[in-house]
Amino acid sequence: MSSTRLEKDSLGQVELPADVLYGINTFRSLANFPISGRPIATYGEFIRAIATVKQAAAQANLELGGLTPEQAAAITAACEEVRAGRHDAHFVVDMFEGSGGTSTNMNVNEVIANVAARNAGQALGEYAVVHPNDHVNLGQSTNDVIPTALKLAVYGALAETPTALRRLAQAFSDKAAEYADLLRLGRTCLQDAQPMTLGQAFGGYAAVIARHADELEALQDQFLTVPLGGTAIGTGFGAQPGYTAAVCRHLAVLTGAAVKPASNAFDAMQNMDNCARLSAELRNTANTLWKIANDLIILSSGPMGGLEEITLPSVQAGSSIMPGKVNPVIPMAVCQVALAVTGNDTAVTLACQQGLLEINHYELIVCDRLLESIRLLTRTATVFTDRCVSGLVGNAEASRQHLLNSSALATALVPALGYAQVSGVVRAAVAEQRPFIEVAMERGLLREDEIQPILYRATHGAAA
Amino acid sequence: MSSTRLEKDSLGQVELPADVLYGINTFRSLANFPISGRPIATYGEFIRAIATVKQAAAQANLELGGLTPEQAAAITAACEEVRAGRHDAHFVVDMFEGSGGTSTNMNVNEVIANVAARNAGQALGEYAVVHPNDHVNLGQSTNDVIPTALKLAVYGALAETPTALRRLAQAFSDKAAEYADLLRLGRTCLQDAQPMTLGQAFGGYAAVIARHADELEALQDQFLTVPLGGTAIGTGFGAQPGYTAAVCRHLAVLTGAAVKPASNAFDAMQNMDNCARLSAELRNTANTLWKIANDLIILSSGPMGGLEEITLPSVQAGSSIMPGKVNPVIPMAVCQVALAVTGNDTAVTLACQQGLLEINHYELIVCDRLLESIRLLTRTATVFTDRCVSGLVGNAEASRQHLLNSSALATALVPALGYAQVSGVVRAAVAEQRPFIEVAMERGLLREDEIQPILYRATHGAAA
Amino acid sequence: MSSTRLEKDSLGQVELPADVLYGINTFRSLANFPISGRPIATYGEFIRAIATVKQAAAQANLELGGLTPEQAAAITAACEEVRAGRHDAHFVVDMFEGSGGTSTNMNVNEVIANVAARNAGQALGEYAVVHPNDHVNLGQSTNDVIPTALKLAVYGALAETPTALRRLAQAFSDKAAEYADLLRLGRTCLQDAQPMTLGQAFGGYAAVIARHADELEALQDQFLTVPLGGTAIGTGFGAQPGYTAAVCRHLAVLTGAAVKPASNAFDAMQNMDNCARLSAELRNTANTLWKIANDLIILSSGPMGGLEEITLPSVQAGSSIMPGKVNPVIPMAVCQVALAVTGNDTAVTLACQQGLLEINHYELIVCDRLLESIRLLTRTATVFTDRCVSGLVGNAEASRQHLLNSSALATALVPALGYAQVSGVVRAAVAEQRPFIEVAMERGLLREDEIQPILYRATHGAAA
Amino acid sequence: MSSTRLEKDSLGQVELPADVLYGINTFRSLANFPISGRPIATYGEFIRAIATVKQAAAQANLELGGLTPEQAAAITAACEEVRAGRHDAHFVVDMFEGSGGTSTNMNVNEVIANVAARNAGQALGEYAVVHPNDHVNLGQSTNDVIPTALKLAVYGALAETPTALRRLAQAFSDKAAEYADLLRLGRTCLQDAQPMTLGQAFGGYAAVIARHADELEALQDQFLTVPLGGTAIGTGFGAQPGYTAAVCRHLAVLTGAAVKPASNAFDAMQNMDNCARLSAELRNTANTLWKIANDLIILSSGPMGGLEEITLPSVQAGSSIMPGKVNPVIPMAVCQVALAVTGNDTAVTLACQQGLLEINHYELIVCDRLLESIRLLTRTATVFTDRCVSGLVGNAEASRQHLLNSSALATALVPALGYAQVSGVVRAAVAEQRPFIEVAMERGLLREDEIQPILYRATHGAAA
Repeated sequence: MSSTRLEKDSLGQVELPADVLYGINTFRSLANFPISGRPIATYGEFIRAIATVKQAAAQANLELGGLTPEQAAAITAACEEVRAGRHDAHFVVDMFEGSGGTSTNMNVNEVIANVAARNAGQALGEYAVVHPNDHVNLGQSTNDVIPTALKLAVYGALAETPTALRRLAQAFSDKAAEYADLLRLGRTCLQDAQPMTLGQAFGGYAAVIARHADELEALQDQFLTVPLGGTAIGTGFGAQPGYTAAVCRHLAVLTGAAVKPASNAFDAMQNMDNCARLSAELRNTANTLWKIANDLIILSSGPMGGLEEITLPSVQAGSSIMPGKVNPVIPMAVCQVALAVTGNDTAVTLACQQGLLEINHYELIVCDRLLESIRLLTRTATVFTDRCVSGLVGNAEASRQHLLNSSALATALVPALGYAQVSGVVRAAVAEQRPFIEVAMERGLLREDEIQPILYRATHGAAA
Repeated sequence: MSSTRLEKDSLGQVELPADVLYGINTFRSLANFPISGRPIATYGEFIRAIATVKQAAAQANLELGGLTPEQAAAITAACEEVRAGRHDAHFVVDMFEGSGGTSTNMNVNEVIANVAARNAGQALGEYAVVHPNDHVNLGQSTNDVIPTALKLAVYGALAETPTALRRLAQAFSDKAAEYADLLRLGRTCLQDAQPMTLGQAFGGYAAVIARHADELEALQDQFLTVPLGGTAIGTGFGAQPGYTAAVCRHLAVLTGAAVKPASNAFDAMQNMDNCARLSAELRNTANTLWKIANDLIILSSGPMGGLEEITLPSVQAGSSIMPGKVNPVIPMAVCQVALAVTGNDTAVTLACQQGLLEINHYELIVCDRLLESIRLLTRTATVFTDRCVSGLVGNAEASRQHLLNSSALATALVPALGYAQVSGVVRAAVAEQRPFIEVAMERGLLREDEIQPILYRATHGAAA
Repeated sequence: MSSTRLEKDSLGQVELPADVLYGINTFRSLANFPISGRPIATYGEFIRAIATVKQAAAQANLELGGLTPEQAAAITAACEEVRAGRHDAHFVVDMFEGSGGTSTNMNVNEVIANVAARNAGQALGEYAVVHPNDHVNLGQSTNDVIPTALKLAVYGALAETPTALRRLAQAFSDKAAEYADLLRLGRTCLQDAQPMTLGQAFGGYAAVIARHADELEALQDQFLTVPLGGTAIGTGFGAQPGYTAAVCRHLAVLTGAAVKPASNAFDAMQNMDNCARLSAELRNTANTLWKIANDLIILSSGPMGGLEEITLPSVQAGSSIMPGKVNPVIPMAVCQVALAVTGNDTAVTLACQQGLLEINHYELIVCDRLLESIRLLTRTATVFTDRCVSGLVGNAEASRQHLLNSSALATALVPALGYAQVSGVVRAAVAEQRPFIEVAMERGLLREDEIQPILYRATHGAAA
Repeated sequence: MSSTRLEKDSLGQVELPADVLYGINTFRSLANFPISGRPIATYGEFIRAIATVKQAAAQANLELGGLTPEQAAAITAACEEVRAGRHDAHFVVDMFEGSGGTSTNMNVNEVIANVAARNAGQALGEYAVVHPNDHVNLGQSTNDVIPTALKLAVYGALAETPTALRRLAQAFSDKAAEYADLLRLGRTCLQDAQPMTLGQAFGGYAAVIARHADELEALQDQFLTVPLGGTAIGTGFGAQPGYTAAVCRHLAVLTGAAVKPASNAFDAMQNMDNCARLSAELRNTANTLWKIANDLIILSSGPMGGLEEITLPSVQAGSSIMPGKVNPVIPMAVCQVALAVTGNDTAVTLACQQGLLEINHYELIVCDRLLESIRLLTRTATVFTDRCVSGLVGNAEASRQHLLNSSALATALVPALGYAQVSGVVRAAVAEQRPFIEVAMERGLLREDEIQPILYRATHGAAA
């Protein structure tokens, strides 16, 4: 039995491995795009989304008379197999293919057609049961299938992100409650500033993370409006009347999500501003996490030569050469992810800008970088929650000492003494390297029994 | 009469020009930050917003007993002068000051105190009427004033942007109606694709621009939630009880906008994610305009050696050496603005990421780049509308010729003949450099009387 | 026989699969960093470079008496196995680990120690032959090993890039020679400008690509200066006197490259500016390729409704729905790669900025994105050469027609008639949609016999 | 006397202010580009560079017979006035003009022509002495003039940057010498690591800054290769034979720099990779300064609740509300500049990518952002040197205490005890919050008289 088979297209004939489920279009792409080495199967959710579109299309086409019941059934069965992840090894087109995913679309068309053939006991590559273009792709174009699938894949992947972020926000809220009364020195420009509690800092973290979760969730809906039915350029040319509504209806059923056709298919095929918008919010979220992680690195610095106002859970040895060293590895992973997500946003944004007349052809890089960003952010939020935030411990003693040694109470004396005079006292305390409180008491400007009330007021919503 | 006067702070005494309305803090900043050469007065809306905050604070402090009626009145009168733009020349701190705008805040405090002094017939720099820190800045910190003013300035500047974008969208909608029946060749990857109308393309442009207008408008509200009352680190330490509500109430009255205090002041002072979010949407909008402008450049290419399917209004001579050349200068300005806005977004995003513990200190660069982006985008949308889109003309004859010479109708034959066979006909037509229609008719695959119906259906929502 | 084994570190004991060659440090990292899903083995060249460093260190330590001959031999043998790619499956740390590669360094240390154990017939995880920290890592820190290995991996990967670029430049040079006399219309702002030859355009492409090859090659040497010997913070603490020179000498022998220690190890461990510099030049190169690819897309637009001044090789079917369509897929892949490389540069640059006191901890993301960029660029240059540029064909007839129909010769009449008068003629020709030459001849401003000489001079270095 | 005058071009007639030195082309651009509000005169060096090109062109054209001696003299005299900065107010085109600077080039052509007219006692706008296009612009196109002038302006502006950076490097070298023996705790991941001296840290800063100075200086030469003589598209069409060599020769004399024509004018007009390369190195330099500034902010944190290992000069009051607070305002300005320069690099890079066939039209935004980056970086380096680094003071006592309290010496015990055992001691010390030294001595693992030798060796090139 031969180990190769022959297929043919308008450019000529090629010999491909006998048992691959893909066909000539996919095969040609392997020669054309030996670029990243990462196949489209890297993003299984994307492949599954394309197969879901194919299945919905088959059902719509059956309804409209474009496919026979046998054809539709064969396509549907094959799509189910692909969606179950059974043929991942056959999605081999490189993530950096040129053109807007034609090779990817054809890879899916061909695998489905060949699975149908195999299921029917027929030879691969002959497409006697269903043809990749004429049947699997009926009423579709790469130009409406790929962006639709991208949107659905993003919609699905994004589902977990707000949840992961809210868990993180909750972990900080819990810590805010736990340390609601742990007094510490607030710092601005890393210089000693005013009193606050550790809980207040954590409450701030919880608030901003929750806001990002809300923003991301709000964006999710933009990914249910799809250009499907627009075919090649938005007109729907090549599909039958009624197809757009039908295919979206089936797609909604298959995905369980409120998929709907774009009100302007031309717009929907030229523009990926929703991806750029989401990418930016992922970036913004990642950067917020960077800021918080950086704060934790600073507050946990030491243990002897730093602030050591909090202690992070020890999750692994910190150094190959310095025994006993423990590093803030989880916050540093968070920071590193933020850099990656920011870089991905650059690529996504530039790709989204590159629409050219009727179509934006750069969905594949958007797919690659956007889905990676979602993954990175979701998983990192989870790791941050479980292996860092939920186990961190505030150090009351170190925090209190920093606070009381500093000039953090100076602001309280301004109303009585004026900014200029209090400045002088602060500078004297710093020059003598003595706590401001001590110097102020010595000069009769502050009584010991005033300290607690000032601290209380300073940290309990003074201006509220 | 001396041309200089002396002022003093905790670092020592300096000699400054006798008649400047700013004081020693501002003066020191001039020596510290001779960096960009652009003073904060570059953004008048920002200065005015700070003065508005100062005025609201004076009123709140009067209400709470922190200022005498005379002090409050003097501050209010001075603020009104600043808000009227009468003292712009005295806002001289460089846009690239270090720290989170302390010099800027003090510049405003000092000008207000000195205007009050001058109004009272007193010497500049003595602050006998009101003191910059003790009275003008009462209950405030740079750390809550500057981000509040930044938000208000952005809120104000942003007001015109959706309007300008909607005018642009409307101009495209008008053109969509005007050219609803002008048949042209849709192109993907710049290769001949399928039939569409010029109006359909313009309708797509209108839709995406309108969406950006909506998104920007939706973001505007985020800029009414301010950290004012949080003072230095969010606790409100240094302000009187009740101050936060009072100052925001006055600020709402003065601005006529629903200003409200942040529910979590710690969050509000550490994070500028709203600025990063807005910056990203400005970037996304600018990139959408880039795409559209680029399309217009391509469609108007020629006049003899390009597509010339549209003609843009001639607004100036296009070349210093090539007589009679007319360039698409307005679309090119649009593209250039998109590059600037994208670069600004990088700076804004990085700045917004740089919160450090209790505060993000980089509001000034955010102010600089974000307000510039808003300005650039708003004005460019207007110029694009008025000097390009509203006067562009579709060229029916060239468009029709491109369409009919191409293989744009090939898709219509697929259901009957299959993808593979039609591919062969297309390639034959291309090889012979003849219109596909001609070759298809010659081969008996298409009748002349079928062409119009196909074109009609192809461009009238085939799949709808 | 048990399927797990126990290992212990200062944080406690864990159970890991019995037969893995890595140890407890690696195992803990799996729980800490389930982030990208991509293991460090993704970059085999990086793993090999670390193993090479380990081997050089073993030899240096042997020389200095820190290891016994048996220990050194065991490590060396194990390193050779790793360098031969025999244990790739055991390098499992996620690319997005936190901290500066401690887990990666320990993964290599542990695999080497266990390979040595296995080679000696001993149990895995007991480290009786050589210990991961005490022997394999002797005189080393993650902080000098990882950046050294990164530099060597980059040095190696970069070797092919200038070669690939020069092949591309040569392909364009060949085309420049082939089409040295093919007259075409030069365009600026996509508007008809002046005459030139297709060969001149291609010659420009060859020149800029060759310049990038030179720049990249010039940067390569920066990657031979390594911080090895600096150990944890640049002082060399923990290594023996003479170690730095010895290890670099051995490393040079093993790699065959002129590896040398950094003159300032503190600098070398804090800063990755060489990576940022290389990343930027990769970005610049990719963007130059973007520009050229974009030109090819425009020049090959059509075939009937575009310029069609060149024809690119048909390498695959262009559409799943439009039969016979052929897209410029290779140039589009080039463009897509440029977007990715630009995004990677953002991530790399931000990572390189993030040095913190004694060390920059973000080498791993730099490794990930920089090595990807090198790969993408090298492979894309090759594909661009072989599957697009070398097979493209210039279309003399279409080019000539565009040229002669346009006003490209108008500049030639300026000296005699002045810019203003010639402008009038050009505008008249455009208004009448007639070739400028025709109108100019009709008005007696140009004689037919003057056309060829003008064209000749215009395209043969007029001002040279 | 009328306050307006009339001018006319091929688009029609306009009325412009009677006494402006610019003409109709400039005037039209004001209506077309009311965008940034910043005129090209913002960059005086750029205007002067264009005028220098015009002067060189006049001399070359005189030599070649294209201008009469009177015309050349009139142009030369006018150029000298412009170069002396006498007419800055008349360079009014907006920085964000569309097209590649045609309006800017014409603004200069018109001012020169009108200055010549005025010098000859003739009416403005009539161009009887010299005509903007026919004489001032003779042999030139915007497309070769503007990039040439941009390069020269960059070349000139860049001259001061390496000098400023070397002064900064020297300031750090001086501090390195001053604090060569100040022992401090080296930190990685902000965790206590190993001993080093403050001088070693500063020496590392000096080294990397000096490297950036060298890199920038090396790039400067790329800006002396100019496309001048290429006219509109690189062919030189419109200029006389011999013009290229002549104009570059005159330009070299006028600028005193080794200006030379590009070997491939097509390349030189399509590509601005040298600008992207310079922009990236400015970015890299700025990011290095960011890192160093950030280190200084951390090391000077406190004064009571931070590390306070160094004290920065007090250059201004740090807070409007917290009396006596002093912030690291200069390092913070440095950081802010780095953000701006990084953002500018994004815009410059994207602009440099946007070449389109024969020309890159986006020089103006490159001019704007690149010259700003050079300015910002140069001035900031100077401020950083003079107002921060040269006056900073190391705090020996605080530094020593952090060092001796930490486990920084633990690495020294590894050879004798092994990594695992020493880890246990370190963790015990941390758990008890006692200095490692104390615990190690108590356990008989370290003798007091060994400490100094270990510290000495640890900080004196241990592995050298």
